Amino acid sequence: MKSLTGIRVLDLSRVLAGPYCTMMLADHGAEIIKVELPGTGDDSRAFTPMIEGESVYFANINRGKKSITLNLKSPDAKEVIKKLVAKSDVVVENFRPGTMEKLKLGYDVLKGINPKIIYACGSGYGHSGPWTSKPAYDLVIQALSGFMSITGQENSIPTKAGPSIMDILTGIFLYAGITTALYAREKTGLGQKVDVAMLDCGVAVLENALMRYTTTGEVPLRIGNRHSSITPFESFKAKDDYFVIACGNDNLFFKMCEVLEREDIKNDRRFATNELRTRNQKVLFILLRKIFEEKTVNEWVSILDAAGIPVAPIITVDKLLDNPQLKARNMLLDMNHPVIGKMKITGTPIKLEKTPGDISSPAPSLGQHTEEVLKNILNIDDSMISYWKKNGVL
Amino acid sequence: MKSLTGIRVLDLSRVLAGPYCTMMLADHGAEIIKVELPGTGDDSRAFTPMIEGESVYFANINRGKKSITLNLKSPDAKEVIKKLVAKSDVVVENFRPGTMEKLKLGYDVLKGINPKIIYACGSGYGHSGPWTSKPAYDLVIQALSGFMSITGQENSIPTKAGPSIMDILTGIFLYAGITTALYAREKTGLGQKVDVAMLDCGVAVLENALMRYTTTGEVPLRIGNRHSSITPFESFKAKDDYFVIACGNDNLFFKMCEVLEREDIKNDRRFATNELRTRNQKVLFILLRKIFEEKTVNEWVSILDAAGIPVAPIITVDKLLDNPQLKARNMLLDMNHPVIGKMKITGTPIKLEKTPGDISSPAPSLGQHTEEVLKNILNIDDSMISYWKKNGVL
Repeated sequence: MKSLTGIRVLDLSRVLAGPYCTMMLADHGAEIIKVELPGTGDDSRAFTPMIEGESVYFANINRGKKSITLNLKSPDAKEVIKKLVAKSDVVVENFRPGTMEKLKLGYDVLKGINPKIIYACGSGYGHSGPWTSKPAYDLVIQALSGFMSITGQENSIPTKAGPSIMDILTGIFLYAGITTALYAREKTGLGQKVDVAMLDCGVAVLENALMRYTTTGEVPLRIGNRHSSITPFESFKAKDDYFVIACGNDNLFFKMCEVLEREDIKNDRRFATNELRTRNQKVLFILLRKIFEEKTVNEWVSILDAAGIPVAPIITVDKLLDNPQLKARNMLLDMNHPVIGKMKITGTPIKLEKTPGDISSPAPSLGQHTEEVLKNILNIDDSMISYWKKNGVL
Repeated sequence: MKSLTGIRVLDLSRVLAGPYCTMMLADHGAEIIKVELPGTGDDSRAFTPMIEGESVYFANINRGKKSITLNLKSPDAKEVIKKLVAKSDVVVENFRPGTMEKLKLGYDVLKGINPKIIYACGSGYGHSGPWTSKPAYDLVIQALSGFMSITGQENSIPTKAGPSIMDILTGIFLYAGITTALYAREKTGLGQKVDVAMLDCGVAVLENALMRYTTTGEVPLRIGNRHSSITPFESFKAKDDYFVIACGNDNLFFKMCEVLEREDIKNDRRFATNELRTRNQKVLFILLRKIFEEKTVNEWVSILDAAGIPVAPIITVDKLLDNPQLKARNMLLDMNHPVIGKMKITGTPIKLEKTPGDISSPAPSLGQHTEEVLKNILNIDDSMISYWKKNGVL
């Protein structure tokens, strides 16, 4: 048994934030009925990289889901949605706020059909407030949340995180909101709306930046790879490439000096405490840069790692596949997709002992489960299904 | 009532990942008993910024918790822990794996005391696999997960996210794992171990980078602020500063060209589809850069925003406080801390309709609730408490 076995999710979401959330729900055992537009389906079915005309992007985050096609503008399709809501536990959508209301499928309608429904919506700015209907994309939220202003090298322009981290954070917080609401429903018997905004998520992960400003009046800006208050916490260039070290306390720093055979640095009063090292980091970094350019990344990593100093090469994505820890943790799984063939997908980072998640099946083709879902869950017969197919409902 | 009202959490975690998780649990109604080392407490009590000797960093992520002091090396303190485990629902810790076993307080011991306990652990590499006992810090995981290799400007060195995003992701996934396990416990009656590793989390949020490599053989590297397959999705320099635009589809691009009064660009065959724009982005960006340097960020944002084009200034942290949407969403709250005074804290991004989270109380002083917890939960009397205080147990 998985944690969410028996939970049925009607998934109206598209592209990334919503589908990432329902991927997590699927990994932990929920039945996901993904509703897609007849003909084209989820926009991300067209996202590169592609193999044999199938998006590998789509295939990763839609594993373990069922796909049905429904044209939500058709009155018959709306009735199907309502019947599915009556037999579901959770609805997930990431339309622009107001879209579901325009379709006459807003939360007020759906909770009238099923008062126990958990209605989970991810959006740029949330379902309340003056900006609710503004358009948003990951890059816009990375800019608006302050995240970009504090990411980047010291002399560089504001920099986005490489991955669409705001979409993904929204997906994770939405999953967390749904499981919280599922637990609450066990206690209260009631469903509810779970409203997660990308902008809120962006601000919630700023760590100490906002505190730093409100406390000191200084506006935190880009400081590259170093830490604002722990030194040395920085990337350095070795003979061949860059690597990072993170001396989180005095002992680690002194130990590192010993390993580097630099008693002079260890005993230098300017570096005696973390506070002093942070204040005198420019001098310290000049000394360390000179030392580190003498050997290769591999040499430094093995020397420092053996001494227990937190050190790491800056890994490119191809090297991840060789990581023995990720293999041991089932984070890089092989999946057989009927069209793509054998592909690598990322596992779930939530490792549960007794009700563990896993990947139950590859991503569905468009509408692969339309008949199965309509027949088995709603008892709709073949003739109606073929009538709807002819008329653009499915 | 909040979602997690009635849930008691024994919180042995320190610094960021674990405390971020228990902050979320506290915001949603759980009772958090934070166990700290007598004398110094959680390391992050010493983290800047400080006001009146109190860490504002600590005060933000430890709001709503109770603090008790316990020296875990003392046999009496171990007995107190065991008695508290018997009366708790969840244990959270983020020690290096093996530490709890060395203290004779490992999961095997604790589940013997309370089979319904959910034992949630956050660590660098997880509680299994060959790297389990290696040291990790956020920067090390940003390097090892591939995240840094794909973050940064095109000609820049690999770049970390400004916030300690790996710690924070681990905290959020750990929260999600705990709520998942709480729900599962309602169904199975059983507690279990929830094991979340920073490295696993880092890989789980890479989005399409890993897929891109395994599919095409190309190693994704840094591409600055643009998108690998959607154009224009980029930052531009206006007369005074940088801003971003995100044209997620053809219509948005054509509309933008109209607003810019550049029919020539709109009708240019090189830019007719997203695929063509991505292939010809260098030419397109040269044209757009020339246009955008003509007006200020404020001018461009108001012109493009009015036309529904996703656009945003790159906000510095000080400007967040003026954001009307964040205010309307209760994401910037005022809290009165007994020492710090009035301070801004970030609200919860999980907005629940019926059992909403909120901030119940400021962060505790060190050991503020030791007597309350020992007396009320464990019925330990005053004389024992003062004996323990004298003897370094508390």
